[in-house]
Amino acid sequence: MCIKIRPFFCGLILGLLSLYTLATPADFSGEDGYRLWLKYDELDNTKLKKAYIKQLSGVYLDASSATGKVIKQELELALPALLGKPLTFNTKADNASLRIQLNQSPSALISGDGFSIQSQGKHLNITANTQVGLLYGTFHFLRLVQTEQSLAKLDITQSPKIQLRMLNHWDDLDRHTERGFAGESIFDWHKLPDYKEQRYYDYARANASIGINGIVPINVNSNALILSPAYLQKVQALADVFRPYGIKVYLSIKFSSPQQLDGLATSDPLDKQVQQWWQNKTAEIYKLIPDFGGFLVKANSEGQPGPGDYGRTHADGANMLAKALKPFGGNVLWRAFVYAHDSEHERSLQAYTEFVPLDGQFEDNVSVQVKNGPIDFQPREPFSPLFGAMPQTSLAMEFQVTQEYLGFSTHLAYLGTMYKEVLDADTHVKGTGSSVAKVIDGSLEGHSLSVMAGVANIGADRNWTGHIFGQANWYVLGRLAWDHELSAEQIAHEWVAMTLTHDVKSSEQIVAMMMASRENIVNYMTPLGLHHLMDTGHHYGPGPWVDNLGRADWNPTYYHRADDFGIGLDRTSKGTNGVSQYAPYWQEIFSDPAKTPDELLLWFHHLPWDYKMRSGQTLWQELVAHYYTGAAAAEQMQQDWLTLKNNIEPNQFNQVRMALAIQVKEAKWWRDACVLYFQSYSKMPLPMGFEKPKHSLEYYQSLKFPYAPGQG
Amino acid sequence: MCIKIRPFFCGLILGLLSLYTLATPADFSGEDGYRLWLKYDELDNTKLKKAYIKQLSGVYLDASSATGKVIKQELELALPALLGKPLTFNTKADNASLRIQLNQSPSALISGDGFSIQSQGKHLNITANTQVGLLYGTFHFLRLVQTEQSLAKLDITQSPKIQLRMLNHWDDLDRHTERGFAGESIFDWHKLPDYKEQRYYDYARANASIGINGIVPINVNSNALILSPAYLQKVQALADVFRPYGIKVYLSIKFSSPQQLDGLATSDPLDKQVQQWWQNKTAEIYKLIPDFGGFLVKANSEGQPGPGDYGRTHADGANMLAKALKPFGGNVLWRAFVYAHDSEHERSLQAYTEFVPLDGQFEDNVSVQVKNGPIDFQPREPFSPLFGAMPQTSLAMEFQVTQEYLGFSTHLAYLGTMYKEVLDADTHVKGTGSSVAKVIDGSLEGHSLSVMAGVANIGADRNWTGHIFGQANWYVLGRLAWDHELSAEQIAHEWVAMTLTHDVKSSEQIVAMMMASRENIVNYMTPLGLHHLMDTGHHYGPGPWVDNLGRADWNPTYYHRADDFGIGLDRTSKGTNGVSQYAPYWQEIFSDPAKTPDELLLWFHHLPWDYKMRSGQTLWQELVAHYYTGAAAAEQMQQDWLTLKNNIEPNQFNQVRMALAIQVKEAKWWRDACVLYFQSYSKMPLPMGFEKPKHSLEYYQSLKFPYAPGQG
Repeated sequence: MCIKIRPFFCGLILGLLSLYTLATPADFSGEDGYRLWLKYDELDNTKLKKAYIKQLSGVYLDASSATGKVIKQELELALPALLGKPLTFNTKADNASLRIQLNQSPSALISGDGFSIQSQGKHLNITANTQVGLLYGTFHFLRLVQTEQSLAKLDITQSPKIQLRMLNHWDDLDRHTERGFAGESIFDWHKLPDYKEQRYYDYARANASIGINGIVPINVNSNALILSPAYLQKVQALADVFRPYGIKVYLSIKFSSPQQLDGLATSDPLDKQVQQWWQNKTAEIYKLIPDFGGFLVKANSEGQPGPGDYGRTHADGANMLAKALKPFGGNVLWRAFVYAHDSEHERSLQAYTEFVPLDGQFEDNVSVQVKNGPIDFQPREPFSPLFGAMPQTSLAMEFQVTQEYLGFSTHLAYLGTMYKEVLDADTHVKGTGSSVAKVIDGSLEGHSLSVMAGVANIGADRNWTGHIFGQANWYVLGRLAWDHELSAEQIAHEWVAMTLTHDVKSSEQIVAMMMASRENIVNYMTPLGLHHLMDTGHHYGPGPWVDNLGRADWNPTYYHRADDFGIGLDRTSKGTNGVSQYAPYWQEIFSDPAKTPDELLLWFHHLPWDYKMRSGQTLWQELVAHYYTGAAAAEQMQQDWLTLKNNIEPNQFNQVRMALAIQVKEAKWWRDACVLYFQSYSKMPLPMGFEKPKHSLEYYQSLKFPYAPGQG
Repeated sequence: MCIKIRPFFCGLILGLLSLYTLATPADFSGEDGYRLWLKYDELDNTKLKKAYIKQLSGVYLDASSATGKVIKQELELALPALLGKPLTFNTKADNASLRIQLNQSPSALISGDGFSIQSQGKHLNITANTQVGLLYGTFHFLRLVQTEQSLAKLDITQSPKIQLRMLNHWDDLDRHTERGFAGESIFDWHKLPDYKEQRYYDYARANASIGINGIVPINVNSNALILSPAYLQKVQALADVFRPYGIKVYLSIKFSSPQQLDGLATSDPLDKQVQQWWQNKTAEIYKLIPDFGGFLVKANSEGQPGPGDYGRTHADGANMLAKALKPFGGNVLWRAFVYAHDSEHERSLQAYTEFVPLDGQFEDNVSVQVKNGPIDFQPREPFSPLFGAMPQTSLAMEFQVTQEYLGFSTHLAYLGTMYKEVLDADTHVKGTGSSVAKVIDGSLEGHSLSVMAGVANIGADRNWTGHIFGQANWYVLGRLAWDHELSAEQIAHEWVAMTLTHDVKSSEQIVAMMMASRENIVNYMTPLGLHHLMDTGHHYGPGPWVDNLGRADWNPTYYHRADDFGIGLDRTSKGTNGVSQYAPYWQEIFSDPAKTPDELLLWFHHLPWDYKMRSGQTLWQELVAHYYTGAAAAEQMQQDWLTLKNNIEPNQFNQVRMALAIQVKEAKWWRDACVLYFQSYSKMPLPMGFEKPKHSLEYYQSLKFPYAPGQG
């Protein structure tokens, strides 16, 4: 074989031949992640299993409704598998140990689709005022079994704290997913309405199990075609699948649809014909989907059409749609994510500037949907100043579940801690205790319409979210929308027990990894309040040097303002005055570097490189230390995971192992690229003890990734 | 709830409420299709299972090589599952009933990666000259068990008839798949090289099980980036996964890569620097991938760069690459799919015109890859006249597995019959018996390099091919590349037994459906030799009226030539003279409508609407009858499938059921649109007894599908 080959390659090939025979084929056993947290593997705790079997000798359930059928099907799927024993259904309630029944008359202890799970002698009763409440109660009951909780003396009563608990998919009609990192959209519009993927049902089950009751299947950068008769039939098919699971479908709409679909001369919301068009279209939708949820609207933002095109306000636009929806019980979710390139205001101020003057003008079936922070889903932002600033308006929370700025689907970032940080933040608008959560759930100002939405991280990847731990972010979004008083740690424990392992020591270790994970990423990407340092377009990897984009406020340099003097964006009254949009309590804190928490320091202040930090170190030293701490934490996480090999199913273990290797590599890339770039301004040496970056700044600046996923 | 609602909608909503409670949730049980034909469910034939258990009491295998490990892993996966009994491995061959061993010295009865399976007393011996031969023998052995064949007195010896058995993926670096209808590409380039999907291994297993030994993971419309160092690392990772399975990676290349990647002034294949560039690049690839397969090239076709840009021939281009690859044992697959808008020749003649004069000029590690027909994967074409016309050149067969023109992934079309029709076609270039198969396998002219490639229908859909029956097309491609003398029916039986059911009556019925399925589609899309009638761009649905595209030869009207006189493209000497490219035997037949087979009549002839067919009917009557027969056959297939409900696993049954509903709908759409359109020329009435089209021609012409999948 080597005769014709040049000697060098001949030796090389022989060398490699001996090497590559050592390659190990994949391990086929183990969990591929498709089942999410609804795994239902037989419990290994024999004692507890015996107790469960005794307590669950028979089930009584009225399965005549579609939701009843879903409950029955879930029990048939779960209990025999968990307990290793066939399931018996009793035709009479008296004989059954587990009884799932609607309340005879509505219970006042429960609101909406809440439920009770109560022990009564030998019986366990799941009750609710609605069929969907029974479904939620059933899933909660199954969670108790999955997480190996005692079923003795139960007295649980829960009602959702937030009314609309939603997933927003930024999915296009061609199945491209904007900011999607787990494969293309799960919604196969071409094959709908006739072909209903099994995946749609499993998606519905997963959502119902965590209380999600609304989904928007298409991108906020919408497409008028979604409202065409052919596509509405497809939407109807999805709604039919989701209905028994208590899930309503909403649609992102294009504000210019009247012109694009039916050739109207205008889409001015004050135009009578336009108003009539929306009324007709809405009626057409409700004919097909009697429980249609409503419209989600991105208007006059990043090039999308909107009422501003006609000199009208967001309220004018939202109210036109709200009036069309009101007769049918639908809602409008009007997004506050707006910023204009010609605005006199710095970007973080613009949503407040545009929306606060409209407070009181929105119809009561409109909720203004606000991203958690004033910029755009950065690893850390302060809470948006809109929360608390529009007391007469229902404000919806928009979290991002997909990790656009948090490492795509290869970085382990548990977002429960981030969501909680925002929800627990105290706006102080009505004194201490005016938390963001209370703004959102309506309790602070007495709104009945309450909404929490997550931008989905779901794609056609077999494990749904690319990274197994991405599943935890879908899970925690639903759980917190149901009850924002749950702790991130408690939810992480639930998820780990259902998804990965019941082993106590392993669980503790995994939960600890999760709890620290988001802060690790903040550290190696954007520590100390830095933000928007990512590369252009795809947002993959570091690009703090980018300064040449079409709009100033798309450039990282707009946000970090690094120069020979120092770094950070001055948002005090001497700067862009972003602080002025917060309650006086926060104005005082955010205006003073000495009072501003370290983690938001450079969000609010431009400080010299030798600024003395609380720790006694200079700003430069501390900045660098954060970058190195973050990258080191990623390495530690990788080490910790490897110790779990024998306690995690091989397929899950390997998926996470491979992702962590990428995360370690990319954490160092972020660290080195940012440190080298900022060093070009600080002109200060790398503090002692830190490993030198592998490459030059020019090298990092030269990297290009034209096919990184999740292009906007 | 209805108080505020207008009475009409109130009634409607109540009506629908009662309806939608009847919606049935999905059945979660059953096979989702991921396992393909490697299902390994426990055999239900108890008697046979007992016999197998007795015959397979222990296995001896040297699993020290990477391929040996793969064999061991497959046996461990398959046998315990099929037999319901743990597997024993013996450390000594003497004790084992199943012995898998390399021949001590190469057997002359076997060539390449062939194998023997032979009974010897109580032993069953699988032997081969190569590790990969043992893997193929093992998969063949498992197929015997899966299809419930006797293991007694086996005496099987097989060697592949074709050397390179390949899948070509038309997948782009952003995971878009040109002509892909089963989700996006399975190759996640972004996460490579670090993240190796379990799917890659299962893909390799499936390919190895049918003898496929080469894959091209990226589109023939290639991207220079694939040869950049960063991407070559990703390719290396794939090659490392595939190697133990006997699969080599090849790359589609962009002919202008020297300019695009490294800024050379030209990509002229006669330029020394360009030649050196390719030599260096090739060496760089082999450093990473010592068993790299070679290059697949689409040049000077549909806008791709090529040697023609510099006035050089295809041979100049191919030979430059061949010389760079030769020292390493690599091959060039140079595609003959070329046609130019400025050619004086009708499109079907152009590949022949360009390539035949180059016969004898290609290096011996070049194979010219020819699509099966002279146009482009139509439901039916005559065999390409290139087969037999280039005796001094290795010719590779390019079949399309993905159903670009055969109903995407919702029409049931078993392509085994089509592949066989082409392979069995007799070119008559060296007298009777000069089959296309003999051209391809090299036996007709004594070529040692032989290639069969299929354009893959594989995507990220859980069942790989969108339609369960699409799996059969992947399967039959591999099986026929291994042995083109197998019958399509025999292969269908194998596949059904492994994939769907062992029930004899059901199998017979399913195989009958499969065997008729492609002709059904020909009938409702392009009967009697019609071709290229599909709509623009996406090729979804009928568009016989399209006449306004950028190039004449992209328009359906270019091919059907319907006018007031008649229909069909005259390719006789009085027309484009396409017949002249065939052997005299065929020239005589194809030149005379009376001798031309009905199924190719309008391919070769433009005939009046009242032309008298063999059947005695007019051409118009027969054309219409074919369309109606095809659509009726689709309905019959749907009915037949529904009778199988209890013999097919629910998930598989439902997937096919939904697809068949779409197929029936679309078959009628094709029928009605084409009949109405051709009627506008024939001016003849619909023959008696045929159901009137549902809509007007204008309606069908108005349909638009901007987001149909598989855009080119």
